[in-house]
Amino acid sequence: MKGCFFSFEGPDGAGKTTMIAKLETFLREKGFAVLSTREPGGVRIAEAIRSIILNPDHTEMDGRTEALLYAAARRQHLLEKIIPAVEAGNIVLCDRFVDSSLVYQGFARGLGVDEVLQINQFAIDGYFPSLTIYFDIDPKMGLERIQKNKQREINRLDMESLSFHYKVREGYLKLAERFSERIVTIDASKPVDEVFAMTVTAVMKQIEGR
Amino acid sequence: MKGCFFSFEGPDGAGKTTMIAKLETFLREKGFAVLSTREPGGVRIAEAIRSIILNPDHTEMDGRTEALLYAAARRQHLLEKIIPAVEAGNIVLCDRFVDSSLVYQGFARGLGVDEVLQINQFAIDGYFPSLTIYFDIDPKMGLERIQKNKQREINRLDMESLSFHYKVREGYLKLAERFSERIVTIDASKPVDEVFAMTVTAVMKQIEGR
Repeated sequence: MKGCFFSFEGPDGAGKTTMIAKLETFLREKGFAVLSTREPGGVRIAEAIRSIILNPDHTEMDGRTEALLYAAARRQHLLEKIIPAVEAGNIVLCDRFVDSSLVYQGFARGLGVDEVLQINQFAIDGYFPSLTIYFDIDPKMGLERIQKNKQREINRLDMESLSFHYKVREGYLKLAERFSERIVTIDASKPVDEVFAMTVTAVMKQIEGR
Repeated sequence: MKGCFFSFEGPDGAGKTTMIAKLETFLREKGFAVLSTREPGGVRIAEAIRSIILNPDHTEMDGRTEALLYAAARRQHLLEKIIPAVEAGNIVLCDRFVDSSLVYQGFARGLGVDEVLQINQFAIDGYFPSLTIYFDIDPKMGLERIQKNKQREINRLDMESLSFHYKVREGYLKLAERFSERIVTIDASKPVDEVFAMTVTAVMKQIEGR
Protein backbone atom coordinates (compact mmCIF):
# COMPACT_ATOMS: atom_id res chain seq x y z
CA MET A 1 0.00 0.00 0.00
CA LYS A 2 1.26 3.46 -0.89
CA GLY A 3 2.21 5.75 1.96
CA CYS A 4 1.17 9.32 2.58
CA PHE A 5 2.94 12.67 2.31
CA PHE A 6 2.39 15.35 4.97
CA SER A 7 4.03 18.76 5.19
CA PHE A 8 4.14 20.96 8.28
CA GLU A 9 4.14 24.71 8.08
CA GLY A 10 4.18 27.72 10.35
CA PRO A 11 6.65 30.20 11.78
CA ASP A 12 9.53 29.09 13.97
CA GLY A 13 8.23 29.01 17.52
CA ALA A 14 4.90 27.48 16.53
CA GLY A 15 6.11 24.05 17.65
CA LYS A 16 6.55 22.25 14.31
CA THR A 17 9.67 20.35 15.36
CA THR A 18 8.14 19.13 18.62
CA MET A 19 4.94 18.05 16.89
CA ILE A 20 6.74 16.19 14.11
CA ALA A 21 8.88 14.30 16.65
CA LYS A 22 5.84 13.35 18.75
CA LEU A 23 3.89 12.35 15.67
CA GLU A 24 6.72 10.20 14.38
CA THR A 25 6.84 8.30 17.71
CA PHE A 26 3.06 7.96 17.77
CA LEU A 27 2.90 6.62 14.19
CA ARG A 28 5.77 4.17 14.72
CA GLU A 29 4.01 2.84 17.81
CA LYS A 30 0.93 2.32 15.65
CA GLY A 31 3.10 0.22 13.34
CA PHE A 32 3.58 2.63 10.47
CA ALA A 33 6.87 3.08 8.65
CA VAL A 34 7.72 6.78 8.96
CA LEU A 35 10.22 9.06 7.28
CA SER A 36 10.79 12.46 8.88
CA THR A 37 12.61 14.83 6.59
CA ARG A 38 13.25 18.46 5.78
CA GLU A 39 14.90 20.10 2.80
CA PRO A 40 17.63 19.57 1.63
CA GLY A 41 17.31 16.20 3.35
CA GLY A 42 20.80 14.84 2.82
CA VAL A 43 20.32 14.68 -0.95
CA ARG A 44 23.70 15.73 -2.31
CA ILE A 45 22.54 17.88 -5.24
CA ALA A 46 20.06 19.62 -2.92
CA GLU A 47 22.83 20.07 -0.31
CA ALA A 48 25.12 21.59 -2.95
CA ILE A 49 22.36 24.01 -4.01
CA ARG A 50 21.63 24.88 -0.39
CA SER A 51 25.28 25.71 0.24
CA ILE A 52 25.15 28.29 -2.57
CA ILE A 53 22.01 29.85 -1.04
CA LEU A 54 23.44 29.94 2.48
CA ASN A 55 26.97 31.08 1.60
CA PRO A 56 27.27 34.30 3.62
CA ASP A 57 29.59 35.80 0.96
CA HIS A 58 26.80 35.71 -1.62
CA THR A 59 25.30 39.03 -0.58
CA GLU A 60 24.65 39.88 -4.25
CA MET A 61 22.14 37.03 -4.58
CA ASP A 62 18.83 38.22 -5.99
CA GLY A 63 15.51 37.10 -4.48
CA ARG A 64 14.41 35.44 -7.73
CA THR A 65 17.69 33.54 -8.03
CA GLU A 66 17.17 32.33 -4.47
CA ALA A 67 13.58 31.24 -5.17
CA LEU A 68 14.69 29.29 -8.26
CA LEU A 69 17.47 27.62 -6.27
CA TYR A 70 15.06 26.61 -3.49
CA ALA A 71 12.72 25.15 -6.12
CA ALA A 72 15.61 23.22 -7.71
CA ALA A 73 16.71 21.78 -4.36
CA ARG A 74 13.08 20.92 -3.56
CA ARG A 75 12.70 19.04 -6.84
CA GLN A 76 15.70 16.87 -6.17
CA HIS A 77 14.76 16.16 -2.52
CA LEU A 78 11.22 15.28 -3.61
CA LEU A 79 12.39 12.89 -6.34
CA GLU A 80 15.16 11.19 -4.45
CA LYS A 81 13.69 10.99 -0.99
CA ILE A 82 9.98 11.81 -0.59
CA ILE A 83 8.47 10.03 -3.60
CA PRO A 84 10.45 6.77 -3.17
CA ALA A 85 9.50 6.69 0.54
CA VAL A 86 5.80 7.22 -0.21
CA GLU A 87 5.90 4.59 -2.96
CA ALA A 88 7.50 2.18 -0.48
CA GLY A 89 4.57 2.69 1.91
CA ASN A 90 6.04 5.23 4.34
CA ILE A 91 4.25 8.04 6.06
CA VAL A 92 6.46 11.00 5.14
CA LEU A 93 6.54 13.99 7.50
CA CYS A 94 8.24 16.96 5.88
CA ASP A 95 9.16 20.01 7.93
CA ARG A 96 8.32 22.88 5.54
CA PHE A 97 7.66 22.42 1.82
CA VAL A 98 6.22 24.48 -1.02
CA ASP A 99 4.10 26.74 1.18
CA SER A 100 7.13 28.15 2.99
CA SER A 101 8.41 29.50 -0.32
CA LEU A 102 4.99 30.91 -1.20
CA VAL A 103 4.69 32.69 2.13
CA TYR A 104 8.24 33.83 2.87
CA GLN A 105 9.45 34.63 -0.64
CA GLY A 106 6.21 35.11 -2.55
CA PHE A 107 4.18 37.00 0.02
CA ALA A 108 6.38 38.46 2.77
CA ARG A 109 9.35 39.34 0.52
CA GLY A 110 7.04 40.47 -2.27
CA LEU A 111 8.05 38.28 -5.22
CA GLY A 112 4.39 37.37 -5.71
CA VAL A 113 2.61 34.23 -4.50
CA ASP A 114 1.44 33.22 -7.99
CA GLU A 115 4.87 33.74 -9.50
CA VAL A 116 6.58 31.63 -6.82
CA LEU A 117 3.79 29.06 -7.11
CA GLN A 118 4.46 28.71 -10.85
CA ILE A 119 8.12 27.86 -10.47
CA ASN A 120 7.27 25.49 -7.63
CA GLN A 121 4.60 23.79 -9.71
CA PHE A 122 7.29 23.22 -12.30
CA ALA A 123 9.50 21.78 -9.54
CA ILE A 124 6.97 19.46 -7.93
CA ASP A 125 5.03 18.59 -11.12
CA GLY A 126 1.71 18.06 -9.33
CA TYR A 127 3.16 16.24 -6.32
CA PHE A 128 1.62 18.32 -3.54
CA PRO A 129 1.41 16.87 -0.02
CA SER A 130 -1.78 14.91 0.65
CA LEU A 131 -2.23 17.17 3.64
CA THR A 132 -0.44 20.20 5.04
CA ILE A 133 -0.74 21.10 8.70
CA TYR A 134 -0.33 24.81 9.35
CA PHE A 135 0.44 25.66 12.98
CA ASP A 136 -1.01 29.11 13.47
CA ILE A 137 0.27 31.35 16.24
CA ASP A 138 0.41 35.04 17.03
CA PRO A 139 3.94 36.15 16.05
CA LYS A 140 4.56 37.71 19.48
CA MET A 141 3.78 34.44 21.23
CA GLY A 142 5.94 32.51 18.75
CA LEU A 143 8.92 34.77 19.37
CA GLU A 144 8.47 34.54 23.15
CA ARG A 145 8.54 30.77 22.87
CA ILE A 146 11.76 30.86 20.87
CA GLN A 147 13.34 33.16 23.46
CA LYS A 148 12.39 30.79 26.28
CA ASN A 149 13.59 27.77 24.38
CA LYS A 150 17.23 27.34 25.30
CA GLN A 151 17.64 24.42 22.94
CA ARG A 152 17.95 26.73 20.01
CA GLU A 153 19.69 30.04 19.33
CA ILE A 154 17.93 33.06 17.88
CA ASN A 155 18.68 33.18 14.13
CA ARG A 156 18.60 35.92 11.51
CA LEU A 157 14.98 35.33 10.63
CA ASP A 158 13.86 35.56 14.27
CA MET A 159 15.30 39.04 14.39
CA GLU A 160 13.31 40.35 11.45
CA SER A 161 10.94 43.07 12.47
CA LEU A 162 7.70 41.99 14.08
CA SER A 163 5.83 43.45 11.12
CA PHE A 164 7.57 40.89 8.89
CA HIS A 165 6.36 38.07 11.14
CA TYR A 166 2.81 39.48 10.99
CA LYS A 167 3.10 39.50 7.22
CA VAL A 168 4.19 35.86 7.28
CA ARG A 169 1.15 34.97 9.34
CA GLU A 170 -1.13 36.89 7.00
CA GLY A 171 0.42 34.97 4.10
CA TYR A 172 -0.18 31.61 5.73
CA LEU A 173 -3.78 32.47 6.57
CA LYS A 174 -4.46 33.53 2.97
CA LEU A 175 -2.86 30.35 1.69
CA ALA A 176 -4.88 28.19 4.08
CA GLU A 177 -8.02 29.82 2.71
CA ARG A 178 -6.97 29.42 -0.92
CA PHE A 179 -5.93 25.78 -0.56
CA SER A 180 -8.53 24.88 2.03
CA GLU A 181 -8.81 21.28 0.75
CA ARG A 182 -5.13 20.64 1.35
CA ILE A 183 -4.21 22.86 4.30
CA VAL A 184 -5.55 22.31 7.81
CA THR A 185 -5.00 25.16 10.26
CA ILE A 186 -4.31 24.23 13.87
CA ASP A 187 -4.29 26.76 16.71
CA ALA A 188 -0.76 26.39 18.03
CA SER A 189 -1.31 28.79 20.94
CA LYS A 190 -3.12 25.96 22.78
CA PRO A 191 -1.28 23.65 25.20
CA VAL A 192 1.03 21.12 23.54
CA ASP A 193 -1.24 18.12 24.31
CA GLU A 194 -4.21 19.78 22.69
CA VAL A 195 -2.22 20.78 19.62
CA PHE A 196 -0.90 17.24 19.36
CA ALA A 197 -4.38 15.73 19.67
CA MET A 198 -5.66 17.95 16.85
CA THR A 199 -2.63 17.06 14.73
CA VAL A 200 -3.14 13.32 15.26
CA THR A 201 -6.83 13.60 14.39
CA ALA A 202 -6.09 15.37 11.09
CA VAL A 203 -3.24 13.04 10.15
CA MET A 204 -5.05 9.80 11.03
CA LYS A 205 -8.14 10.86 9.10
CA GLN A 206 -5.96 11.34 6.02
CA ILE A 207 -4.09 8.05 6.50
CA GLU A 208 -7.27 6.07 7.03
CA GLY A 209 -8.92 7.72 4.05
CA ARG A 210 -6.19 6.60 1.63
CA MET B 1 21.83 56.69 -24.22
CA LYS B 2 20.85 53.16 -23.23
CA GLY B 3 22.51 50.29 -25.06
CA CYS B 4 20.92 47.31 -26.71
CA PHE B 5 20.70 43.61 -25.84
CA PHE B 6 21.10 40.97 -28.55
CA SER B 7 21.10 37.22 -28.12
CA PHE B 8 22.37 34.69 -30.65
CA GLU B 9 20.89 31.25 -31.05
CA GLY B 10 21.28 28.15 -33.12
CA PRO B 11 22.98 24.77 -32.94
CA ASP B 12 26.72 24.43 -32.53
CA GLY B 13 28.19 24.46 -36.02
CA ALA B 14 25.88 27.23 -37.23
CA GLY B 15 28.67 29.79 -36.82
CA LYS B 16 27.44 31.78 -33.78
CA THR B 17 30.87 32.22 -32.24
CA THR B 18 32.44 33.44 -35.50
CA MET B 19 29.56 35.85 -36.15
CA ILE B 20 29.64 37.31 -32.64
CA ALA B 21 33.41 37.90 -32.88
CA LYS B 22 33.09 39.58 -36.30
CA LEU B 23 30.16 41.63 -35.12
CA GLU B 24 32.00 42.79 -32.01
CA THR B 25 34.92 44.01 -34.14
CA PHE B 26 32.56 45.70 -36.59
CA LEU B 27 30.61 47.50 -33.86
CA ARG B 28 33.75 48.64 -32.04
CA GLU B 29 35.09 50.06 -35.29
CA LYS B 30 31.82 51.95 -35.63
CA GLY B 31 32.54 53.46 -32.18
CA PHE B 32 30.10 51.46 -30.07
CA ALA B 33 30.93 50.10 -26.62
CA VAL B 34 30.37 46.35 -26.84
CA LEU B 35 30.10 43.57 -24.28
CA SER B 36 30.28 40.01 -25.57
CA THR B 37 29.14 37.51 -23.01
CA ARG B 38 27.72 34.05 -22.52
CA GLU B 39 26.29 32.37 -19.45
CA PRO B 40 27.53 32.05 -16.73
CA GLY B 41 29.66 35.04 -17.73
CA GLY B 42 32.14 35.09 -14.87
CA VAL B 43 29.41 35.95 -12.35
CA ARG B 44 30.40 33.96 -9.28
CA ILE B 45 26.93 32.80 -8.16
CA ALA B 46 26.16 31.76 -11.74
CA GLU B 47 29.54 29.98 -11.95
CA ALA B 48 28.80 28.12 -8.71
CA ILE B 49 25.39 27.04 -10.06
CA ARG B 50 26.96 25.99 -13.36
CA SER B 51 29.48 23.83 -11.56
CA ILE B 52 26.63 21.89 -9.93
CA ILE B 53 24.98 21.37 -13.33
CA LEU B 54 28.19 20.28 -15.04
CA ASN B 55 29.56 18.08 -12.23
CA PRO B 56 29.90 14.71 -13.99
CA ASP B 57 29.18 12.88 -10.72
CA HIS B 58 25.66 14.34 -10.60
CA THR B 59 24.14 11.66 -12.82
CA GLU B 60 21.01 11.63 -10.64
CA MET B 61 20.15 15.21 -11.63
CA ASP B 62 16.58 15.51 -12.91
CA GLY B 63 15.77 17.54 -16.03
CA ARG B 64 13.52 19.93 -14.10
CA THR B 65 16.19 20.52 -11.46
CA GLU B 66 18.60 21.32 -14.28
CA ALA B 67 16.16 23.72 -15.94
CA LEU B 68 15.60 25.56 -12.64
CA LEU B 69 19.35 25.80 -12.08
CA TYR B 70 19.91 27.22 -15.58
CA ALA B 71 17.17 29.77 -14.93
CA ALA B 72 18.77 30.73 -11.59
CA ALA B 73 22.21 31.19 -13.18
CA ARG B 74 20.63 33.17 -16.01
CA ARG B 75 18.92 35.51 -13.54
CA GLN B 76 22.15 36.34 -11.78
CA HIS B 77 24.16 36.82 -15.02
CA LEU B 78 21.41 39.04 -16.39
CA LEU B 79 21.27 41.22 -13.25
CA GLU B 80 24.96 41.52 -12.61
CA LYS B 81 26.30 41.74 -16.12
CA ILE B 82 23.81 42.27 -18.95
CA ILE B 83 21.48 44.88 -17.44
CA PRO B 84 24.26 47.10 -16.01
CA ALA B 85 26.08 47.01 -19.37
CA VAL B 86 22.94 47.95 -21.31
CA GLU B 87 22.18 50.73 -18.81
CA ALA B 88 25.74 52.03 -19.30
CA GLY B 89 25.15 52.27 -23.05
CA ASN B 90 26.79 49.06 -24.26
CA ILE B 91 25.70 46.86 -27.11
CA VAL B 92 25.49 43.48 -25.40
CA LEU B 93 26.00 40.35 -27.53
CA CYS B 94 24.99 37.24 -25.63
CA ASP B 95 25.84 33.78 -26.99
CA ARG B 96 22.65 31.80 -26.16
CA PHE B 97 19.97 32.99 -23.75
CA VAL B 98 16.41 32.02 -22.87
CA ASP B 99 15.60 30.40 -26.23
CA SER B 100 18.30 27.74 -25.78
CA SER B 101 16.50 26.51 -22.66
CA LEU B 102 13.15 26.57 -24.44
CA VAL B 103 14.47 24.57 -27.39
CA TYR B 104 16.89 22.12 -25.77
CA GLN B 105 15.11 21.46 -22.46
CA GLY B 106 11.54 22.47 -23.23
CA PHE B 107 11.19 21.08 -26.75
CA ALA B 108 13.92 18.55 -27.56
CA ARG B 109 14.10 16.97 -24.09
CA GLY B 110 10.34 17.17 -23.67
CA LEU B 111 9.87 19.25 -20.49
CA GLY B 112 7.45 21.49 -22.40
CA VAL B 113 8.21 24.86 -24.01
CA ASP B 114 5.52 26.71 -22.03
CA GLU B 115 6.63 25.20 -18.74
CA VAL B 116 10.27 26.13 -19.32
CA LEU B 117 9.17 29.55 -20.57
CA GLN B 118 7.30 30.18 -17.29
CA ILE B 119 10.29 29.58 -15.08
CA ASN B 120 12.44 31.65 -17.40
CA GLN B 121 9.93 34.48 -17.36
CA PHE B 122 10.23 34.42 -13.58
CA ALA B 123 14.02 34.54 -14.00
CA ILE B 124 14.24 37.38 -16.53
CA ASP B 125 11.19 39.33 -15.29
CA GLY B 126 10.35 40.76 -18.71
CA TYR B 127 13.91 41.47 -19.75
CA PHE B 128 13.94 39.72 -23.12
CA PRO B 129 16.63 40.64 -25.67
CA SER B 130 15.67 43.49 -27.99
CA LEU B 131 16.48 41.15 -30.82
CA THR B 132 17.48 37.51 -31.12
CA ILE B 133 19.35 36.26 -34.17
CA TYR B 134 18.70 32.61 -34.91
CA PHE B 135 21.26 31.02 -37.24
CA ASP B 136 19.36 28.30 -39.03
CA ILE B 137 21.19 25.40 -40.60
CA ASP B 138 20.46 21.82 -41.61
CA PRO B 139 21.78 19.67 -38.75
CA LYS B 140 23.85 17.50 -41.13
CA MET B 141 25.64 20.55 -42.46
CA GLY B 142 26.18 21.91 -38.93
CA LEU B 143 27.76 18.65 -37.79
CA GLU B 144 29.98 18.49 -40.89
CA ARG B 145 31.23 21.98 -40.11
CA ILE B 146 32.05 20.99 -36.53
CA GLN B 147 33.95 17.94 -37.77
CA LYS B 148 36.00 20.07 -40.15
CA ASN B 149 36.68 22.69 -37.52
CA LYS B 150 39.86 21.65 -35.79
CA GLN B 151 39.66 24.52 -33.35
CA ARG B 152 37.13 22.70 -31.30
CA GLU B 153 36.64 19.14 -30.10
CA ILE B 154 33.45 17.16 -30.56
CA ASN B 155 31.44 17.33 -27.31
CA ARG B 156 28.69 15.22 -25.78
CA LEU B 157 25.91 17.19 -27.44
CA ASP B 158 27.48 16.85 -30.89
CA MET B 159 27.23 13.12 -30.53
CA GLU B 160 23.51 13.05 -29.81
CA SER B 161 21.60 11.25 -32.51
CA LEU B 162 20.87 13.19 -35.66
CA SER B 163 17.17 12.95 -34.85
CA PHE B 164 17.80 15.01 -31.68
CA HIS B 165 19.49 17.70 -33.77
CA TYR B 166 16.53 17.73 -36.16
CA LYS B 167 14.24 18.14 -33.18
CA VAL B 168 16.33 21.10 -31.98
CA ARG B 169 15.97 22.73 -35.38
CA GLU B 170 12.23 22.11 -35.39
CA GLY B 171 12.07 23.73 -31.95
CA TYR B 172 13.97 26.81 -33.08
CA LEU B 173 11.79 27.20 -36.18
CA LYS B 174 8.62 26.99 -34.09
CA LEU B 175 9.99 29.52 -31.63
CA ALA B 176 11.01 31.90 -34.42
CA GLU B 177 7.44 31.73 -35.70
CA ARG B 178 5.91 32.25 -32.25
CA PHE B 179 8.17 35.16 -31.32
CA SER B 180 8.44 36.58 -34.81
CA GLU B 181 8.74 40.17 -33.54
CA ARG B 182 11.82 39.33 -31.50
CA ILE B 183 13.54 36.52 -33.41
CA VAL B 184 15.14 37.02 -36.82
CA THR B 185 16.05 33.85 -38.69
CA ILE B 186 19.22 33.95 -40.80
CA ASP B 187 20.14 31.20 -43.25
CA ALA B 188 23.49 30.07 -41.88
CA SER B 189 24.14 27.66 -44.75
CA LYS B 190 25.16 30.65 -46.92
CA PRO B 191 28.81 31.76 -47.21
CA VAL B 192 30.20 33.50 -44.10
CA ASP B 193 30.28 36.95 -45.72
CA GLU B 194 26.63 36.74 -46.70
CA VAL B 195 25.60 35.55 -43.25
CA PHE B 196 27.59 38.35 -41.69
CA ALA B 197 26.03 40.97 -43.99
CA MET B 198 22.53 39.80 -43.02
CA THR B 199 23.48 39.82 -39.34
CA VAL B 200 24.86 43.37 -39.55
CA THR B 201 21.73 44.57 -41.33
CA ALA B 202 19.42 43.15 -38.63
CA VAL B 203 21.56 44.39 -35.75
CA MET B 204 22.09 47.91 -37.12
CA LYS B 205 18.40 48.31 -37.87
CA GLN B 206 17.67 47.52 -34.22
CA ILE B 207 20.41 49.80 -32.88
CA GLU B 208 19.36 52.71 -35.08
CA GLY B 209 15.72 52.21 -34.15
CA ARG B 210 16.38 52.62 -30.40
